[in-house]
Amino acid sequence: MLRTHNCGELRIEDTGKEVTLCGWLQRSRDLGGMTFIDLRDRYGITQLAFNMEKNAGLCKQARELGREFVLRAKGTVTERSSKNPKMPTGDIEIFVTELEVLNESQTPPFTIEEETDGGDDLRMKFRYLDIRRESVRKNLELRHQMAIETRNYLNLQKFIEVETPVLIKSTPEGARDFLVPSRMHAGQFYALPQSPQTFKQLLMIGGLDRYFQIVKCFRDEDLRADRQPEFTQIDCEMSFVTREDVFETFEGLAKHLFKAVKGVENIRFEQMSYQDAMKYYGTDKPDTRFEMRFAELNTLAQGKGFKVFDDAELVAGICAEGCAEYSRKQLDALTDWVRRPQIGAKGLVYVKYNPDGSFKSSVDKFFNQEQLQEWAEAMGAKPGDLLLILAGETHATRKALGELRLEMGKRLGLRKSDTFSCLWVTDFPLLEWDEETGRFYAMHHPFTAPLKDDLHLLEKEPAKVRANAYDMVINGVEIGGGSIRIFDRELQEKMFHVLGFTPEEARNQFGFLMDAFRYGAPPHGGVAFGFDRWCALFGGSDSIRDYIAFPKNNAARDVMIDSPSRVDPAQLQDLHLKLNIQDKEE
Amino acid sequence: MLRTHNCGELRIEDTGKEVTLCGWLQRSRDLGGMTFIDLRDRYGITQLAFNMEKNAGLCKQARELGREFVLRAKGTVTERSSKNPKMPTGDIEIFVTELEVLNESQTPPFTIEEETDGGDDLRMKFRYLDIRRESVRKNLELRHQMAIETRNYLNLQKFIEVETPVLIKSTPEGARDFLVPSRMHAGQFYALPQSPQTFKQLLMIGGLDRYFQIVKCFRDEDLRADRQPEFTQIDCEMSFVTREDVFETFEGLAKHLFKAVKGVENIRFEQMSYQDAMKYYGTDKPDTRFEMRFAELNTLAQGKGFKVFDDAELVAGICAEGCAEYSRKQLDALTDWVRRPQIGAKGLVYVKYNPDGSFKSSVDKFFNQEQLQEWAEAMGAKPGDLLLILAGETHATRKALGELRLEMGKRLGLRKSDTFSCLWVTDFPLLEWDEETGRFYAMHHPFTAPLKDDLHLLEKEPAKVRANAYDMVINGVEIGGGSIRIFDRELQEKMFHVLGFTPEEARNQFGFLMDAFRYGAPPHGGVAFGFDRWCALFGGSDSIRDYIAFPKNNAARDVMIDSPSRVDPAQLQDLHLKLNIQDKEE
Repeated sequence: MLRTHNCGELRIEDTGKEVTLCGWLQRSRDLGGMTFIDLRDRYGITQLAFNMEKNAGLCKQARELGREFVLRAKGTVTERSSKNPKMPTGDIEIFVTELEVLNESQTPPFTIEEETDGGDDLRMKFRYLDIRRESVRKNLELRHQMAIETRNYLNLQKFIEVETPVLIKSTPEGARDFLVPSRMHAGQFYALPQSPQTFKQLLMIGGLDRYFQIVKCFRDEDLRADRQPEFTQIDCEMSFVTREDVFETFEGLAKHLFKAVKGVENIRFEQMSYQDAMKYYGTDKPDTRFEMRFAELNTLAQGKGFKVFDDAELVAGICAEGCAEYSRKQLDALTDWVRRPQIGAKGLVYVKYNPDGSFKSSVDKFFNQEQLQEWAEAMGAKPGDLLLILAGETHATRKALGELRLEMGKRLGLRKSDTFSCLWVTDFPLLEWDEETGRFYAMHHPFTAPLKDDLHLLEKEPAKVRANAYDMVINGVEIGGGSIRIFDRELQEKMFHVLGFTPEEARNQFGFLMDAFRYGAPPHGGVAFGFDRWCALFGGSDSIRDYIAFPKNNAARDVMIDSPSRVDPAQLQDLHLKLNIQDKEE
Repeated sequence: MLRTHNCGELRIEDTGKEVTLCGWLQRSRDLGGMTFIDLRDRYGITQLAFNMEKNAGLCKQARELGREFVLRAKGTVTERSSKNPKMPTGDIEIFVTELEVLNESQTPPFTIEEETDGGDDLRMKFRYLDIRRESVRKNLELRHQMAIETRNYLNLQKFIEVETPVLIKSTPEGARDFLVPSRMHAGQFYALPQSPQTFKQLLMIGGLDRYFQIVKCFRDEDLRADRQPEFTQIDCEMSFVTREDVFETFEGLAKHLFKAVKGVENIRFEQMSYQDAMKYYGTDKPDTRFEMRFAELNTLAQGKGFKVFDDAELVAGICAEGCAEYSRKQLDALTDWVRRPQIGAKGLVYVKYNPDGSFKSSVDKFFNQEQLQEWAEAMGAKPGDLLLILAGETHATRKALGELRLEMGKRLGLRKSDTFSCLWVTDFPLLEWDEETGRFYAMHHPFTAPLKDDLHLLEKEPAKVRANAYDMVINGVEIGGGSIRIFDRELQEKMFHVLGFTPEEARNQFGFLMDAFRYGAPPHGGVAFGFDRWCALFGGSDSIRDYIAFPKNNAARDVMIDSPSRVDPAQLQDLHLKLNIQDKEE
């Protein structure tokens, strides 16, 4: 090694040692008689000292060096006269006797500091410089640790990691595939996997019993704020299991990661049906760090002449503890907030449960104190609380009220970043009706088993069938999801039929899986976790991009390498393709 | 779990326990009063016993079951009357009290046995059934163990696994890229990485210090026998290192894997220059489990009137110990062998060093006993040995003699599968001249640093420049290769110039890397291992395909899922593409 030590490991006990360090010049200070350089590498920062009196040449050389120069310095570990208790190496400095510039650096386009002057776009273009910043590096280190701990835990649980192919087959069901033209087979294409779903099922049919893979998946979708065209899953599957076995196994994984990575113990998992999640939280991924459950007020609030309520499919509210003193201005602002198009409520009804036991509401014209008292009781409110009520079509009202609940939870400090509430949401609907195409789509994917109790409804009332599917939700973030799978050929065929596949379409796209079901498929089920998302949750960030070394932007472009890009026409010819662009100047 | 135990864990100590097992019917035997079923899962085989007298119904049910049915059996662990010492569970059987058929199976297209009746093509089409065979499953388990051990070793050495992007940019230098058309950017394409080379260099520039990744790579090449369009690398890079540091680190990895996976200790690594490897073994990946080095005989053998030798650029031979008694027929067969087009020699000269000290050769007309004695001495031969000599153009002769050496090593039992000889081959040429395109190509890749001693030759005699590049070779198999990289912008520009890039081409393809070199690139180097190949070596196979769960065939086709395949014309339209096929009926 060009160094004897790294920049994070020398301590007062090393005083007197001859050492050689390599790293980047973080900053330098010229104090006349002395020059100091902070030398940085992945492991830390160590101070280099140069003395004008003792070695003027070296000291002058040191003064000429710019930020981010790559240096190799040899010298003696010396106790500092003014120690820096904030730095692990703050007790010592290196009195430098030899200095080599390994490489120079132009002034970087932004400062390599935690509080950098670089905007998002600039830092993405020069991502390799951004990675030098401690927080970005720590994110990548966290991700590495999560992966190592995940693999070792699953290995101990007898899971085998199997690499499934990346060049697979396009199956238009679901999101849009990325395609890869074949050169050897003119007019034919591979597709990149949206998930290894069918392969992991084939591995179960192959008797592997317990499979996992930390694996890149691909979706060619118009990108929402926090989606990436390529993302990483922890993909898992088990044979001969019920969903309780899946829960137990992956609660184990989550608890292990909480302990190993976050140092958090005593994690407990709750279970909640999709139906309850929607009814009480207005979302299939409730943040259960705090209660504030919905109360439905239809019985109490309808038929009293308030048209907004009377016309509503649902009247429901939440109780914001201790908020009775909200001012008119605050309430107006909250009303404006729920009316924003992202939330979509038409208005907001409030009831202040005053500390003296009286009520003041925005609907005093229609409801008297006794009636409001009844509402308060139904919502478990006490004097000092504020009731916030929305009304309208059930689904939209729940969704809006769920957003309002999260907002109030945030304002009341109930969504603490060091508190973790873990949940399995279960019994999702098997199918979703799509108005536009006039057909059902699988809510999860076409291989999800219906709940046994609902199996008889599959052909006549498919919309009512619940799936044996589940999501893992932590603090309102969907970390993963899975299901018990169909392993019976006839049921799978029926499922494709309900989804509107002709037998030929089913065979063309999934024939290999249908064939496999002929030869002794075991009962099986599994789960896939969004690894980027889980890293972001543990890292305390909302953005998965912070946990990806080289992310793409919202236009699916890598601005650092400038990709996608045009290619040589000869390459297209090899692939039996022509561009089909209206305006070639585009 | 649907089971209480798996099929590999019950022992005589478990006698009397009530257990439930799940698995596949491997075979059944009907002995009249008793029926036995071998129940198989990933963990082993356990015998189920059914007694006609005690439970005729169950016994009859058991007799109806076919191979590969999926069963769930409840019963009591019972000591066997006739034990099977070959099976870990051979002391016991399960006296079955309840039997459930979880799934039926058609008769599989080949027998799920080690000695299967299924040919390669059939087993590939039904790969999920092939995976049920013990040897295939064990290959995948070995691969999993190799990956886990690799990651844990590198993690302890402070390497961070970083996922680099799969959707990158096409760089026509090197092999052919797989392209991925962009929907959002008409006429533009991503490419799949042939390796994460530039990204790992950027991570070093980003200060990550030690990076690794077990990662899928892609090459759209016409497939030779043992290549796959997608393959897996253990990709590694380190900063502030010399090549000796790289050697030490990855010898450590190899030793760890040898010990953890193969139980082999005392592995030592030798080093050999490319020049010596070619001179003494005729290949850049010599199998050094045995000596049999080449001796060059030009001085001794030329100018004696034997035109074949006199006209040759090189006369060289090997000494096959104890083979002096080869018959005329054997020697003729060997001559035919070297004349095959794969080997390409024109003929073979032999000299028998008879046990009595005399010589008998195919060139007795031209050389007397004294002269042959000189050859024997030069080749370190002793009575009883056989000298095999080829002559011709240097490179071709070395190549052919290298093949002959391997063949003789095999015939003499010198290439033992339980012996491991590990080697670094160093100092490869930096560049290769390509006659067809009339330009130099990088032998490794354009980022490889020249040896410092040869730097002055780069512009005037580029062919003579040696690279600071190395391959790891085990038992004649190239397991991996790498180099110390260029980290200086000017040298990299010079390198692109030597390779015939215009500055614009260099900028267009590698501008981001050239830019990165401006901002403090550290000295760095690394290595990439062919993970599939390493697994095959450790598993004792020549074929990487045996170690890939779902391999593609020689036409890059996945015959199981039937991919690549045609896609919906709407998908092509979304991608701004048209097919460019002469004969649309193809």
